[in-house]
Amino acid sequence: MATKKKNAEIQPVVGIIMGSDSDLPVMEPAATELKNFDIPFELTVVSAHRTPARMVEYASKAADRGIKVIIAGAGGAAHLPGMVASLTTLPVIGVPVKSSNSLDGWDSLLSILQMPNGIPVATVAVNASKNAGILAASILALSDDKLAAKMKTFKTGMEKEVLKKASVLKDKNWPNYFDQ
Amino acid sequence: MATKKKNAEIQPVVGIIMGSDSDLPVMEPAATELKNFDIPFELTVVSAHRTPARMVEYASKAADRGIKVIIAGAGGAAHLPGMVASLTTLPVIGVPVKSSNSLDGWDSLLSILQMPNGIPVATVAVNASKNAGILAASILALSDDKLAAKMKTFKTGMEKEVLKKASVLKDKNWPNYFDQ
Amino acid sequence: MATKKKNAEIQPVVGIIMGSDSDLPVMEPAATELKNFDIPFELTVVSAHRTPARMVEYASKAADRGIKVIIAGAGGAAHLPGMVASLTTLPVIGVPVKSSNSLDGWDSLLSILQMPNGIPVATVAVNASKNAGILAASILALSDDKLAAKMKTFKTGMEKEVLKKASVLKDKNWPNYFDQ
Amino acid sequence: MATKKKNAEIQPVVGIIMGSDSDLPVMEPAATELKNFDIPFELTVVSAHRTPARMVEYASKAADRGIKVIIAGAGGAAHLPGMVASLTTLPVIGVPVKSSNSLDGWDSLLSILQMPNGIPVATVAVNASKNAGILAASILALSDDKLAAKMKTFKTGMEKEVLKKASVLKDKNWPNYFDQ
Amino acid sequence: MATKKKNAEIQPVVGIIMGSDSDLPVMEPAATELKNFDIPFELTVVSAHRTPARMVEYASKAADRGIKVIIAGAGGAAHLPGMVASLTTLPVIGVPVKSSNSLDGWDSLLSILQMPNGIPVATVAVNASKNAGILAASILALSDDKLAAKMKTFKTGMEKEVLKKASVLKDKNWPNYFDQ
Amino acid sequence: MATKKKNAEIQPVVGIIMGSDSDLPVMEPAATELKNFDIPFELTVVSAHRTPARMVEYASKAADRGIKVIIAGAGGAAHLPGMVASLTTLPVIGVPVKSSNSLDGWDSLLSILQMPNGIPVATVAVNASKNAGILAASILALSDDKLAAKMKTFKTGMEKEVLKKASVLKDKNWPNYFDQ
Amino acid sequence: MATKKKNAEIQPVVGIIMGSDSDLPVMEPAATELKNFDIPFELTVVSAHRTPARMVEYASKAADRGIKVIIAGAGGAAHLPGMVASLTTLPVIGVPVKSSNSLDGWDSLLSILQMPNGIPVATVAVNASKNAGILAASILALSDDKLAAKMKTFKTGMEKEVLKKASVLKDKNWPNYFDQ
Amino acid sequence: MATKKKNAEIQPVVGIIMGSDSDLPVMEPAATELKNFDIPFELTVVSAHRTPARMVEYASKAADRGIKVIIAGAGGAAHLPGMVASLTTLPVIGVPVKSSNSLDGWDSLLSILQMPNGIPVATVAVNASKNAGILAASILALSDDKLAAKMKTFKTGMEKEVLKKASVLKDKNWPNYFDQ
Repeated sequence: MATKKKNAEIQPVVGIIMGSDSDLPVMEPAATELKNFDIPFELTVVSAHRTPARMVEYASKAADRGIKVIIAGAGGAAHLPGMVASLTTLPVIGVPVKSSNSLDGWDSLLSILQMPNGIPVATVAVNASKNAGILAASILALSDDKLAAKMKTFKTGMEKEVLKKASVLKDKNWPNYFDQ
Repeated sequence: MATKKKNAEIQPVVGIIMGSDSDLPVMEPAATELKNFDIPFELTVVSAHRTPARMVEYASKAADRGIKVIIAGAGGAAHLPGMVASLTTLPVIGVPVKSSNSLDGWDSLLSILQMPNGIPVATVAVNASKNAGILAASILALSDDKLAAKMKTFKTGMEKEVLKKASVLKDKNWPNYFDQ
Repeated sequence: MATKKKNAEIQPVVGIIMGSDSDLPVMEPAATELKNFDIPFELTVVSAHRTPARMVEYASKAADRGIKVIIAGAGGAAHLPGMVASLTTLPVIGVPVKSSNSLDGWDSLLSILQMPNGIPVATVAVNASKNAGILAASILALSDDKLAAKMKTFKTGMEKEVLKKASVLKDKNWPNYFDQ
Repeated sequence: MATKKKNAEIQPVVGIIMGSDSDLPVMEPAATELKNFDIPFELTVVSAHRTPARMVEYASKAADRGIKVIIAGAGGAAHLPGMVASLTTLPVIGVPVKSSNSLDGWDSLLSILQMPNGIPVATVAVNASKNAGILAASILALSDDKLAAKMKTFKTGMEKEVLKKASVLKDKNWPNYFDQ
Repeated sequence: MATKKKNAEIQPVVGIIMGSDSDLPVMEPAATELKNFDIPFELTVVSAHRTPARMVEYASKAADRGIKVIIAGAGGAAHLPGMVASLTTLPVIGVPVKSSNSLDGWDSLLSILQMPNGIPVATVAVNASKNAGILAASILALSDDKLAAKMKTFKTGMEKEVLKKASVLKDKNWPNYFDQ
Repeated sequence: MATKKKNAEIQPVVGIIMGSDSDLPVMEPAATELKNFDIPFELTVVSAHRTPARMVEYASKAADRGIKVIIAGAGGAAHLPGMVASLTTLPVIGVPVKSSNSLDGWDSLLSILQMPNGIPVATVAVNASKNAGILAASILALSDDKLAAKMKTFKTGMEKEVLKKASVLKDKNWPNYFDQ
Repeated sequence: MATKKKNAEIQPVVGIIMGSDSDLPVMEPAATELKNFDIPFELTVVSAHRTPARMVEYASKAADRGIKVIIAGAGGAAHLPGMVASLTTLPVIGVPVKSSNSLDGWDSLLSILQMPNGIPVATVAVNASKNAGILAASILALSDDKLAAKMKTFKTGMEKEVLKKASVLKDKNWPNYFDQ
Repeated sequence: MATKKKNAEIQPVVGIIMGSDSDLPVMEPAATELKNFDIPFELTVVSAHRTPARMVEYASKAADRGIKVIIAGAGGAAHLPGMVASLTTLPVIGVPVKSSNSLDGWDSLLSILQMPNGIPVATVAVNASKNAGILAASILALSDDKLAAKMKTFKTGMEKEVLKKASVLKDKNWPNYFDQ
């Protein structure tokens, strides 16, 4: 949950968890994106390896607590997203974190993506927690018309931003583009 | 849609598409899984590179036609899942196909997973179309209690199957295990 | 187009496009090289994922507008070069961009290079937009004798530059070489 | 040259060369594709490592002999495409061959693609000699309207083929698709 | 435990577990090696993803049941060894399995090896379950003089075998070596 | 041995060796961890390539000197752990060092992990010497009840630390988390 | 030594060693090549890991026995070439063997090539024992004029063989080339 | 040649060449090492791609000029060592350079190492030009007893240096080791 006040009032529907608080800078854009879409969420640290009991409890009870989508980020031998997916029927979105201990993110990526038959993790690009937030929004938008409308506006917004940049580029000599 | 009869009667909610009919054997388990969950689906060939117009049409109109989740499989420089995601606000699940032309699936995997900010693709493991079907089911189950119940049964079923195998293993000498 | 003035006067024959303006520093050497060869060009931002409609329009109409070669740069799951190639019969040169979000350029490289049968992309080295410009020049020189002559001068120039360095190296103690 | 008869009559404009005759099966589709587009070509073995003098001669004189595009295939430490590119101003298309001695094609790919500034090789996918042929055609079509028209027909043909497959898939239960 | 009879009589000190019974052929050499060293063991299927509760129970209670070393094999996003290590203070030996679904074993290897600070897994080579058995023996031999003696004999045996092969090679023409 | 005083008094049971003193910063956490567990150790430089005789002597006599576990770190073509393992029956823990000369640690990792049948090296993650220390402790704890108790406390300590961080995160807005 | 007779008569100047007799088929071309150049050699099995004492003896005494070049092949964590190089001042040629246990040869390659400063191994391509033989010959030819002449003939022979194939290809339709 | 004076007096026996003067800092240790061994050498820039004629001349005439070993360094699609090897019967040592344009050195490494049958390049580790110098010395020492003696001294020197460091480490607390 973003703030304590909101925590008391609004039921979070997305749970953002990460294996270590060192993953927080990488995982923040997921939270920012959910805020932009006005989707209530909670954010906490759950370590598959250092707090396995907490992980089992978090994953097993998430659905009953009203959570609909779990976003899990982890680095190295990243077991959190897959283990959470094994303990819930909710869709789990995995964010491979390129931590200083990881092999440039290759270990994080493969440990999250290559799940066995039966237990999928919806994996996004390395460090792409922003996309995890957007993916969660697109899932929730399936049964939320207001959110679906926001998704369309979001998409149009991205398009407009690029078109504007293309227009600026046309009006200027490109070597001076970044001076604007 | 699995059969023509069903096609006329039931609105498909999942669209399974693939870049080439040579991907069909890899993508079939997605269809089988959706059948097992009684989720109506359609299955067709849409090539990002050979039928770009068809792809634009398919992706742009999928939501209006009642599709809720798109499963897209492709190999090599696999652009289908990402391009479809750029043309819809629906969640798109990407299946990297390890085709004979691909570099052991590494190109398929990276071309689908490493999407830029703003346009996520929910990527599953290489060739894991079965997991794509299960992930679609878990997404749809968020607003479908019957399906949610089936998901739980499915999960319990997997557990029982392993426990049974463990039990057989206990009763027999393992070197003879596969003779049973 | 390099400058607004030129834009009105000269028909560009090469279109340099990139997925994001953050790719501009990597793509500039392509423009510089074309300028050196006096080849009129245009340069703009076209995102396969954020402006798919613009991309379809750009690629479909490029030939009719007089463009002969398209240079497309993109990073990560780099779909721009391949998608443009699917929408035109013009030769498309792809530049894999090693962006901060990419996996050291491996994803960009494979997403551009590993195109399926029927839709080639002429791929150059990671970040090698300078070579994309030279390749475009060599293609255009096939039907432009003046340009063909410039290509030969360019090649001789490179040779001379190396020979000069070899000569300097011979005249000096190498440990002092970079002091010159 | 495709046939001895043609050899005497028609000036080849594309030169297909390969490092070893063991690369012939991989390189044949380039020839087939050029035949389909009625582009006169020659096909021979030129080894950068075993016949360096022949390579220098072939590459240096190709333009004067009327060759416009060179397609060069090689495997392992594949130096042929890059060395030929260093000896001509013609566009050179490189085909990384996945030979039994190569490291799954990774060495071939990197040895051809990662050329230094100044000497580009237009690289296509591993073993994708068919695409090399199509790329050569698209380059030659820039100054050949008849060929340009054939390129469009070729593209439409690919589209129709996929649409037909999609149509068959719609009419049949997909599990029986490959029985047709 | 190798056989039911032994199961009742002898306390197993090594637990060999694997994520799926399809890993059994790869994991058998671990069992064979332990048998050769007369080390009592048990062998069963424990899936981190399909039977998480069983895994928690197995790992948490192993030490109390008298197990001293756990050998865990798994493929793909191989979480079993690391999760078991998070739930016990016993040394855990991980065997990366190169299964048909894995990316040539690279995913298995990285998912097992790259554990975060605090929870090591003693990883052996891909598919090297034989070495897992030997490593377990070397650990147990630290407090078992009889076993330590067997380890020395084992090592001398390997040496003798190579020396014998070298001797045969000396006596024969090597081209006929494998005819012997 | 951590200090000269201790050296005289206490028999070291773990030998930490490394190929070069440039590996010392990477290997220190192993020593720190052993100190935390009150396990006597020695620490020195043994190079497989520059001091092969010293390596043979060190490895062959380690067991007789009372060493029970050897931790060996090395980078690049890292032969030290494997060669030491070939010369002793003690368990050898290998730490792949990501040195400036290594290929991002991939060469170190594979040179240590991929040992042939008969001579295992218990490999930990790249640069994970801390985990090497913990693994050594878990092995020694099998015959040392006091140490076994410390291992449990260590594990509980890690859990508590994460729970505390999760609690702090709950009490604060996460964007301010690192300001605390 | 190729045959027992020769063994008694001729002093071998090249020592071909390999880690296991399973590497023999991969290493034979080195022997064949040396025979072709009439260079006396010996061929035997020396395992760095299973016969470390034999390896130390072999490497330390090779120079004194008259050996001038050592060719060492090994797979996986291939320590033989590097360890031999650490024990002799003779040039050591390393052949990375792509064994069934290796990770497609990547581990063999990196374990042999990435030697630290001070102890080079002259590495050839994966499985390229034939090139190891030729490299040994080129080294020995520096002080053997007869051999130097043979090297030139060998090189000319390779050139002729390619030129002949090119000639045959010119005379025939290439689709029938392999029928000849 | 290290100095102009020496140039006039002493016949160089090793040729150090590199593809670009930007490779000079990486290649200098080869020269330093040869100086240490009093081996006369020359050092210059020869680009396979930008000065192919110079390369052909350099390689073809090196032997006649008295050069005995060629050390060639290059980065990216590094063709210089292999092409030089194809034009001489002298042993060629290849140094893969990890340039800013290379893919972390992987392209340089594979382009140099993976030479086809018949044309070996004695490859050393990425950036390991120092080892290239030592390897050249070991080759020349085969017919130069003085140099052979220096090689032995060099090897003993390395050993002593490590033993000294080990001794210092023993006398000090290791945490203070680098303060010495």
